[in-house]
Amino acid sequence: MKITVLGTGSVGVVFAGRLMDLGYEVMIGTRNVTESLSRTTGDGYGGPPFSSWYDVHKQVKLGTFAEASAFGEVVINATRGGASVAALKLAGESNLNNKVLIDVANPLDFSKGMPPVLLPELCNTNSLGEEIQRTFPRVKVVKALNTMLCSLMVNPVMINGGDHNVFICGNDSDAKASVIELLKHFGWEMQNILDLGDITASRGTEMILPLWLRVMGTVGTAAFNFRIVK
Amino acid sequence: MKITVLGTGSVGVVFAGRLMDLGYEVMIGTRNVTESLSRTTGDGYGGPPFSSWYDVHKQVKLGTFAEASAFGEVVINATRGGASVAALKLAGESNLNNKVLIDVANPLDFSKGMPPVLLPELCNTNSLGEEIQRTFPRVKVVKALNTMLCSLMVNPVMINGGDHNVFICGNDSDAKASVIELLKHFGWEMQNILDLGDITASRGTEMILPLWLRVMGTVGTAAFNFRIVK
Repeated sequence: MKITVLGTGSVGVVFAGRLMDLGYEVMIGTRNVTESLSRTTGDGYGGPPFSSWYDVHKQVKLGTFAEASAFGEVVINATRGGASVAALKLAGESNLNNKVLIDVANPLDFSKGMPPVLLPELCNTNSLGEEIQRTFPRVKVVKALNTMLCSLMVNPVMINGGDHNVFICGNDSDAKASVIELLKHFGWEMQNILDLGDITASRGTEMILPLWLRVMGTVGTAAFNFRIVK
Repeated sequence: MKITVLGTGSVGVVFAGRLMDLGYEVMIGTRNVTESLSRTTGDGYGGPPFSSWYDVHKQVKLGTFAEASAFGEVVINATRGGASVAALKLAGESNLNNKVLIDVANPLDFSKGMPPVLLPELCNTNSLGEEIQRTFPRVKVVKALNTMLCSLMVNPVMINGGDHNVFICGNDSDAKASVIELLKHFGWEMQNILDLGDITASRGTEMILPLWLRVMGTVGTAAFNFRIVK
């Protein structure tokens, strides 16, 4: 199966690497291929520059947002949340229509300093997941995985034997079913995948970020997750 | 020890009843005592009218917001989040100053229908906890317990053997230490009490509400909670 990953930041390369290891054909999309390959600094989260990563992952295809989106049967949005809608417009509606788009991004606003807040226009009465769905009505948007560290997204057994939760939501049941299959490949157990309903539930999963950032500070690691108990 | 509970809704009576059972002297504060006692309907969350509850809890004192706030050494804000600052103004700054105020309320906005959103002026770049602290700078505000069903707040062993998390935050370390003692009386174990830092962390715990509401719908019960695993 062909999967597109949009974004060359730490989240994008974690997805691309894991998907390649699992046997998928992967193409990464970026705004400007030459620029991405000439970058000499990481994305600020401690990872190497994209070019260093790509040097040892040459099996992954690389192209523009549009080329990569034309390639994949499923598209993963791993661009920065504040730039996601613009990136998806560059990807091109016709390259995305009728495809499942897994949105793992968060609309973080770093303009007011640290810790970031959420972009006000994508918070509380709206969300990035909804905004993408509204902008691309024929794309099957599934919000998923955005509530945790990226290495956990694709490898949940990293902590607590994999026993913690991932939230998904979206308007298309078949799209959600296909995302659940992918999540299982990553190592998620069915009982830990919580379907929260339609895409408006993105508000809830994105609004957990301010708590997530504080909990990270308190527990002293980003490698944690929420587990629902009852 | 004398504790004040502000609010006669389901959260208020759950706190008052539990505190009484634990041997505290409790006084409930309300806007209008006569009106609260003459109410014939519940608060919409399935509980009985306040007067029916009070008939069998006569040991709990009852007074105005101001009378009750003058009584307690610790004050618990269990009023509706959107009305909390106004209620605390009625309680009176001089009755609250230098006391620990535990804010368990959430600034839910039901004006746009169900499910509620958060009041925009108390979301993302502000929060109810912060707003109370800003309005009453000499009160020791500790935000706590607002991320779960009220019966769990005061009796965590109700689910999962008590093994799930409560978040606290506030600017005064001694105030947080005294709240931790109270939480232990309720049954919280020390390792499950996560101190998220200063009062601005209220943003995080209040912004979890939209997710909480969706998870409730998915798991089919309000008697659930978040547990951090790492």
